[in-house]
Amino acid sequence: MVPCTCSEAGVATAVKDQTQTRPSEQTLVEIDKVPLIGETPQSLLQNWLTPNPLFYVRNHFDTPEIEMSSWRLSVDGFVSEPGQLNFYDVKRLPKYTSTITLECAGNNRSDLEPPTPGNQFQAGAVSTAVWAGAALKDILEEAGIEPGARQVLFEGADSGTPVPGGPEMSYLRSLPMEVAMHPDTLVAYEMNQEELPIEHGYPLRLVVPGWYGMASVKWLSGIKVIDYEFEGFFQTDRYVIENDDGVWEPIKEMSTKSLISSPAGGEVLANKPTCVAGMAWSGNAQIKNVEFSSDGGQTWEQATLTGPSERYAWQQWHMTWTPPASGHYTLACRATDRLGNVQPIKTRWNAGGYVVNGVRPVCVTVAA
Amino acid sequence: MVPCTCSEAGVATAVKDQTQTRPSEQTLVEIDKVPLIGETPQSLLQNWLTPNPLFYVRNHFDTPEIEMSSWRLSVDGFVSEPGQLNFYDVKRLPKYTSTITLECAGNNRSDLEPPTPGNQFQAGAVSTAVWAGAALKDILEEAGIEPGARQVLFEGADSGTPVPGGPEMSYLRSLPMEVAMHPDTLVAYEMNQEELPIEHGYPLRLVVPGWYGMASVKWLSGIKVIDYEFEGFFQTDRYVIENDDGVWEPIKEMSTKSLISSPAGGEVLANKPTCVAGMAWSGNAQIKNVEFSSDGGQTWEQATLTGPSERYAWQQWHMTWTPPASGHYTLACRATDRLGNVQPIKTRWNAGGYVVNGVRPVCVTVAA
Repeated sequence: MVPCTCSEAGVATAVKDQTQTRPSEQTLVEIDKVPLIGETPQSLLQNWLTPNPLFYVRNHFDTPEIEMSSWRLSVDGFVSEPGQLNFYDVKRLPKYTSTITLECAGNNRSDLEPPTPGNQFQAGAVSTAVWAGAALKDILEEAGIEPGARQVLFEGADSGTPVPGGPEMSYLRSLPMEVAMHPDTLVAYEMNQEELPIEHGYPLRLVVPGWYGMASVKWLSGIKVIDYEFEGFFQTDRYVIENDDGVWEPIKEMSTKSLISSPAGGEVLANKPTCVAGMAWSGNAQIKNVEFSSDGGQTWEQATLTGPSERYAWQQWHMTWTPPASGHYTLACRATDRLGNVQPIKTRWNAGGYVVNGVRPVCVTVAA
Repeated sequence: MVPCTCSEAGVATAVKDQTQTRPSEQTLVEIDKVPLIGETPQSLLQNWLTPNPLFYVRNHFDTPEIEMSSWRLSVDGFVSEPGQLNFYDVKRLPKYTSTITLECAGNNRSDLEPPTPGNQFQAGAVSTAVWAGAALKDILEEAGIEPGARQVLFEGADSGTPVPGGPEMSYLRSLPMEVAMHPDTLVAYEMNQEELPIEHGYPLRLVVPGWYGMASVKWLSGIKVIDYEFEGFFQTDRYVIENDDGVWEPIKEMSTKSLISSPAGGEVLANKPTCVAGMAWSGNAQIKNVEFSSDGGQTWEQATLTGPSERYAWQQWHMTWTPPASGHYTLACRATDRLGNVQPIKTRWNAGGYVVNGVRPVCVTVAA
């Protein structure tokens, strides 16, 4: 059962004037300037592709200055041919294009009760773009992976002191060998057919489809094949979650999740059949189905999947709901992916405020 | 009555597998390379904001080469202070931002029967972006309009010979004084918060909200206040339509129009309530309502407007349709703007193939 979270239960006033002008909100909703952090405006969460300037940003340090004449991507560690690639060494490799949804692990953090520290994202730290670049696998194979390799470590050109008074560090994350060698893992240089914007990692960004955004290292400057399991601030201190055995584990694939983009919470609807629409995604597999509830999760019915269905992109869905009578309703949706992963009714609260994928009710009033 | 135009009437096979992977089509659908002409892919017509690389393009000449060090915008004619502005002269003026839908006057030309010459656009020569720039009015007021001014003539930096063997010309269009001086008419330098892409008129594009796209002159290089009514190839030879009195008149504001973005034509639907969704727009006013028909236009019911409502942007709408039985259905929508302009059932056929805004049926089959 999903509790209604609004304060308007039972208050049916007038049917909303659909022709009213709403304020324009077509800019990133800024959460912080340095580092740059912002989320996609809520009204744009119905856009299957997010325009680049509205794609959510969750940076960890000040945006680095990139000087292309001297810029290089180092590839070293357990490889037979360590070296430095320039931008054109990467661009001459076969180009792969894929529509990929990225979600920040802290998306919807502001829904948590009790609240946790961290950026108080609403639902907009999730966006979708057409990414294009080289397969990471091709870069690694050219370098020649040596026996003993266990992980690949990625370094961004950004650095700073994430803990005041603490050590200075760059942004570092690793991937297991099988994810690094997966043909869909990209070293991207294009986003929606444009050069990567600087805030999204120009000139190169690792894009790990299916994983929360923190894995997709921006301003990629170093690739190192290593023979150990990397531990680091952004991998084993932050972006970790306690499992059922009390062990803290790094966050990986995006958990199954969905949202209602229309109607908006607080809307007053006419007493007639109405379309409910939204998005659903999972990092582990494509979405198999979305269910809809108008009684706060007591009963569920199947919604219809619509629009493009791509392996790594979110799935649009819609549903016809016929209100049985006037009154206050708690609408909800939940998604299931093709591996059977079901979005939970309630987010598993955790101190980091990550993986907030519980069913998120939308309270509406149906006019008399 | 809107005739069914598909060839599958009565053929109910299986309910469509909603989980099938559709081919990725997230690129502009190219119609021509020189001049560059392309339309937004049909599956993206449900995106309220169109990412820049997917925004339709209808250029008339080869893309001009712009050298910013020498680039100037001339302002002359019936003004007290003729002169040449550089890019920063324009950028220092107050900046206005507006979400504006542009449609090519030839959009949907391929629906015409009998066909007409010209680019055979399907439904994708319409797109929406957040445009920002100076008010044209501010530029004109700085130049000081002299008595006797009747129109403002705009010149693009692009040129060529539109008729093989004919004269070379640049792209020229004029506006009446009251449209030029309207505070919403922009000299835009940003599109979706990015610098104007070259194919959309970098560095400056006139954007005339509400008018068909041909009025929004790209690569704007000259503004001339004139004391006569301009006649020119792209104003009085092309982009003209015969009125009821047999007089050929230049095309101006976008006529009221709507489209169904979901379901797609040919879909086989389950026999249960289904959401129908789409877009509607008019250059003359905001959309007041959208009606939906499932019987080819014999009966109509009100759809619901949803998403942002802005003066110059298209309006999303959706509708719940409950099929009365299995069988073949001709779905249709029609929009009405706040001035009472109703989208016609049938496009007024014209030799230029412009203003194709008749109701466009979508044929579907409801499975048994």
